[in-house]
Amino acid sequence: MAVDYTARVERAQAEMTKKGIDALIVGVGADLIYLAGYPAHPSSRMTLLIVPREGAARILVPVLEVPRLAARGVPFAPVPWGETDNSTQMAANILREHGAKVIAAGDELWARWLVRILNYYPEAKWEVGSLLLRELRMLKDEAEIGFLRDASHRTDDAWAEFKATTKLTGMTEQQAIERLTELMVARGLDSHGGICASGPNSASPHHQNGDRVIRHGDAVCFDFGGRIAHYTSDITRMVHIGEPSEEYRRVYDVVLRANEAAFAAVRPGVECQAIDRAARDLITAEGYGEFFIHRLGHGLGLDVHEEPYLVGGNALPLRAGMAFSDEPGIYMPGKFGVRIEDACICTETGGDKLNEAPRDLAVME
Amino acid sequence: MAVDYTARVERAQAEMTKKGIDALIVGVGADLIYLAGYPAHPSSRMTLLIVPREGAARILVPVLEVPRLAARGVPFAPVPWGETDNSTQMAANILREHGAKVIAAGDELWARWLVRILNYYPEAKWEVGSLLLRELRMLKDEAEIGFLRDASHRTDDAWAEFKATTKLTGMTEQQAIERLTELMVARGLDSHGGICASGPNSASPHHQNGDRVIRHGDAVCFDFGGRIAHYTSDITRMVHIGEPSEEYRRVYDVVLRANEAAFAAVRPGVECQAIDRAARDLITAEGYGEFFIHRLGHGLGLDVHEEPYLVGGNALPLRAGMAFSDEPGIYMPGKFGVRIEDACICTETGGDKLNEAPRDLAVME
Repeated sequence: MAVDYTARVERAQAEMTKKGIDALIVGVGADLIYLAGYPAHPSSRMTLLIVPREGAARILVPVLEVPRLAARGVPFAPVPWGETDNSTQMAANILREHGAKVIAAGDELWARWLVRILNYYPEAKWEVGSLLLRELRMLKDEAEIGFLRDASHRTDDAWAEFKATTKLTGMTEQQAIERLTELMVARGLDSHGGICASGPNSASPHHQNGDRVIRHGDAVCFDFGGRIAHYTSDITRMVHIGEPSEEYRRVYDVVLRANEAAFAAVRPGVECQAIDRAARDLITAEGYGEFFIHRLGHGLGLDVHEEPYLVGGNALPLRAGMAFSDEPGIYMPGKFGVRIEDACICTETGGDKLNEAPRDLAVME
Repeated sequence: MAVDYTARVERAQAEMTKKGIDALIVGVGADLIYLAGYPAHPSSRMTLLIVPREGAARILVPVLEVPRLAARGVPFAPVPWGETDNSTQMAANILREHGAKVIAAGDELWARWLVRILNYYPEAKWEVGSLLLRELRMLKDEAEIGFLRDASHRTDDAWAEFKATTKLTGMTEQQAIERLTELMVARGLDSHGGICASGPNSASPHHQNGDRVIRHGDAVCFDFGGRIAHYTSDITRMVHIGEPSEEYRRVYDVVLRANEAAFAAVRPGVECQAIDRAARDLITAEGYGEFFIHRLGHGLGLDVHEEPYLVGGNALPLRAGMAFSDEPGIYMPGKFGVRIEDACICTETGGDKLNEAPRDLAVME
């Protein structure tokens, strides 16, 4: 199960040749985990993987973090820099050594490094790192899919216990999400928490959890996830406190059918925007088109949001090994919103849902 | 206690005039919290505050997050962008509208946005945002110091309970830090966890917590903190499991005196590097200079590491209102390390320690 990071870097180098890019620089974040297996934290001290199109990758690292790099078995030569060294100047010098003219900067690289490097190296032309890495990171191998599945199943389990053991009425949104997070952590998930949006708050897709007390008559939306080996789950389930209105039942049914319609459209060769459209057409035909105010879904992996994006205008064809969310929603301002989200994989023959938590309309107290 | 974000932006604009910068763009992160009071999470959807040198700031925001912005009372006009809009092109257009020639990019802005904007707008010259914001963020006002003090005191309390109620022997480093984090969370701190480095691991200043079991004879280093209103504490305390060796006692005493010597040197007008030197000279005179392998300290505020940096080469004079760590360390490879860290404020008359947790040599079981 050991990841071959050298092979991943070689694939990035092959992309560089194809796309006419001379070097890639990657800071702390998901790209660094993907290419080097190094989960460093963002820091005022620069860590930077430098991959030339040809030759060995090197990693600039604060001298006092060299032991961490070694402990992780990162297979690229460290270039340690000391507390009084100019690390960005060192990076520019290495790029110049390689005669790099077109340089890709990893998507999550901070401007504090990039701006300094580009000012030390004004002759370079810049591209985004995802130009090279999207293809690699989008297509998950078996081990990666295994982590995503594991994370999703543990998240489903946490949700099952949450539903079975929690009395939501009287809890604040914040308390509810904390309880759910505890259940995820207890299952070994590194949880990034999530959204609990209750009552009219559920009509805001990215509601920030607050002190609103959940009460009888509320629709409550939970959008949450956690990580196994850095790969994340991402699921949304609704519950209704007490018997729901006819309108809620109707909207719930439309969203559920839209979730299923999108999933049914998943297979290699279908464009990302066609998956979005499968859900959107159904919702529009039911008269709720204007209330589905976001894209259908996003890729899922080391980042909670990554390529491919299932959104209008994205003609990228699905391929086996892609992982993404299927999350249609209908948001009725001032009243309630409904979103149902599953993590999915595109396989050779169609879609594979990673989440198994029940999707039928749930009523709780 | 309400923060006047408009006044903060006006001060940033005054810095822009002084430094010949035409516009500032700020993405998700500490700068956005500082300037706009908006604690958004990093996302595949761009959020970008655009501050021209003259005129009103605007904030590009995903249309589905406009309600979050409103809920936070962000006093800058939102420019919502929809799921199929090109948000980076929109940002470049706004910059061009202002005729911006020299643009500062906030330090934590992601390359995925910056590279696209600079390619849409190749005539611009770029600077780092800290050129404008360091002065503002370094000098804490009373409310900010209040948050830092509150966070430090709650962290001290958590440490006191941890020491009084925890049997470290037999725990893994990871378990120990989880227990300590729980005690911080129980005190209302948003905890970013921390480092527990035991035995020979304590000789690595940035050790990554692992499954090593803490045992009799270990030096154990805890470096941890948590946030109140986004302002963070940061403290390091040592414990020794069972009676320590003479060497440990000697090293501990030297580090403690170095911590005190640095603190005693704090007053307005003293250069940052002189505070580092006060500790370093003492450690060197005691024969341990080569084992003090990092800077003395870093600024503290919305970021765990920010300006001012107490490091050789930094001639910046301290000013009243600056907040920073005082954290000398001695690391004996293969044996143990000792670091003692307090958060401090520079006042008009000298230094003020925010941490009150005892600093004498602690022995635990």
